[in-house]
Amino acid sequence: MNQRLKSLSLWLQHHDDSFAFITSSANVFYLSGFWCDPHERLLALLVFPDGEPVLVCPQMETARARRAGWGYAVIGYDDSTDPWEEIHRHLQGRAIKANTIAVEKSHLSFARFERLSALFPNVQWLDAEETLRQLRLIKDEQEMKRLRQAAELADRAIEIGVSAIRPGVTELELVAVIEYELKKLGVEGMSFPTTVLTGARTADPHGVPGSAAVASGDFVLFDLGVIVDGYCSDITRTVVCQTASDEQRLIYDTVLRAQQAAIDACRPQTALGAIDRAARSVIEQAGYGPYFTHRVGHGLGIEVHEHPSLHGANEELLVPGMVFTIEPGIYVPAIGGVRIEDDIAVTDSGGQVLTSFSKELIIV
Amino acid sequence: MNQRLKSLSLWLQHHDDSFAFITSSANVFYLSGFWCDPHERLLALLVFPDGEPVLVCPQMETARARRAGWGYAVIGYDDSTDPWEEIHRHLQGRAIKANTIAVEKSHLSFARFERLSALFPNVQWLDAEETLRQLRLIKDEQEMKRLRQAAELADRAIEIGVSAIRPGVTELELVAVIEYELKKLGVEGMSFPTTVLTGARTADPHGVPGSAAVASGDFVLFDLGVIVDGYCSDITRTVVCQTASDEQRLIYDTVLRAQQAAIDACRPQTALGAIDRAARSVIEQAGYGPYFTHRVGHGLGIEVHEHPSLHGANEELLVPGMVFTIEPGIYVPAIGGVRIEDDIAVTDSGGQVLTSFSKELIIV
Repeated sequence: MNQRLKSLSLWLQHHDDSFAFITSSANVFYLSGFWCDPHERLLALLVFPDGEPVLVCPQMETARARRAGWGYAVIGYDDSTDPWEEIHRHLQGRAIKANTIAVEKSHLSFARFERLSALFPNVQWLDAEETLRQLRLIKDEQEMKRLRQAAELADRAIEIGVSAIRPGVTELELVAVIEYELKKLGVEGMSFPTTVLTGARTADPHGVPGSAAVASGDFVLFDLGVIVDGYCSDITRTVVCQTASDEQRLIYDTVLRAQQAAIDACRPQTALGAIDRAARSVIEQAGYGPYFTHRVGHGLGIEVHEHPSLHGANEELLVPGMVFTIEPGIYVPAIGGVRIEDDIAVTDSGGQVLTSFSKELIIV
Repeated sequence: MNQRLKSLSLWLQHHDDSFAFITSSANVFYLSGFWCDPHERLLALLVFPDGEPVLVCPQMETARARRAGWGYAVIGYDDSTDPWEEIHRHLQGRAIKANTIAVEKSHLSFARFERLSALFPNVQWLDAEETLRQLRLIKDEQEMKRLRQAAELADRAIEIGVSAIRPGVTELELVAVIEYELKKLGVEGMSFPTTVLTGARTADPHGVPGSAAVASGDFVLFDLGVIVDGYCSDITRTVVCQTASDEQRLIYDTVLRAQQAAIDACRPQTALGAIDRAARSVIEQAGYGPYFTHRVGHGLGIEVHEHPSLHGANEELLVPGMVFTIEPGIYVPAIGGVRIEDDIAVTDSGGQVLTSFSKELIIV
């Protein structure tokens, strides 16, 4: 078994007569190397305290699971078979007595909980999510390689977007150009819907691109990410079209200094909250405190938002192998917003920045 | 209250002392007109047998809910507030005694079920999904308008894709061109990841576009859809590059005749299964039965796959107002596959085809 499955088995050994029933695509991928979006169908990975794991997936996906390297048992089912009966039969064959079943409580549906409850009436329920979060928190070499590649393509995407800016081009046209060029480079997926905002619309941290056109003097904000072999990047850059006002320069410079302060704070054994506070204090000192309305960053990996959360009250310590974003922003209604975001890997000596597109104020 | 909310309230009146706790984005949108993807946060619409409904959503989304026309109470919460306590307080204020709570069993998570159970310890659980599926089954005039617009844009997308075919262009390049041009037309989202496949790869009904290049003599298959104001279209066309073999022509002609037979079968009061059987029988008579490996279609609306399912064993009857796809296919390994898919609205007099891109065999 790989180290990830072994770690989960070891955790299960502390809970007698138990097994884990893992159903989220992200955790199944992490543990098995097999990515599958089963839509409404059942995907499950059963992991035991001893003995080999078993994968449950639609029959038409089993060949793909094998190609992804899954070497243990597979329970494949078609639309005329009840996968729950197959699971029951399999567990009876292995003489599994379940006192406790570990599930992802925020992922398992009520309907599936009812099916499992019917098979194992007096079982205790355990939440496997925290354990899996902790396992996924520290990235290994293969994960780092994918994250680096995803970050490089994110840099490339920003370069494409910035080169396409001219007065009159719309937000959606800039999104289109970026995704078109990335597809030509062979990119198969974005981490989330690509965001391009212009003018005062950059002041909305959750803005959605539309038909607004770039005008001279506008901030233009790009927030995007690329998926490489299942791993996500996430980058934000903000530039100005043609001419920047003094206030725009001041806001930009403040965000840039805040971001650098946060990156400098990334030393192992520092509290995660201190990274948020490092950025926030620069922004507060410049008088823009009320306009920095979100946490400084979030973990990054198989999911574009994963553990850890970099909010000011998080006293967890930085550990080498963590990967997260640092993305302070200042959003002034009617004027606009600036956000600068990089992907950071924690090493023994500090934060290593994976995204490398220039952060000097660019005036296109 | 709108008719949709009234219908759900009426259904609840048959279950004393109950309320519905609706959490899926699609059903909240259907009932409230407000689309929200809350990620890991709680979105819920509480509907009562009598009295006004209440929406629960993140504080930063409440303004958007108002703009979408939501006129009843909103429980907005921020990241430092527990929405479950707010809900409890609200229900106590209304003196709600819950004997039964109706939830979407395949959507509500175990974790949320536990939170609700803690608030209402001895409650019975009812599944609201079938009722909501039945409500959503018959589209009203506003929904039809959106579905028509989405279908028109899908036609446009196929036109763009077909025009861009030339030997050497890759699948991902064709995807890129289509999505680029649609974004320039102001399209904000696709119903699902756009599929373009070429050559023998068209024989995989679940193929994913890659760097394969179109060659002379290839089938090129486009499967895509567009979202307009929350409603999806879904179209498939298959064309040939430069020169078609006799077998390609035979396969294409068979699929086209099967699709027309299925459309002709769309008369009110026919069983849905008869539509599948109409297409299947044409394909079987041509000797390609084993190569038509999926159902003939699926319902279409807020979700790109919704109720009803058009499989051969479905004895539900067609009713005016239903909207679904008809998409027979023949997939011959090593040769390739053809699928032809239209969106159909059932009217008093039969099936009305919403997608209108030509179905004659196109040789580019």
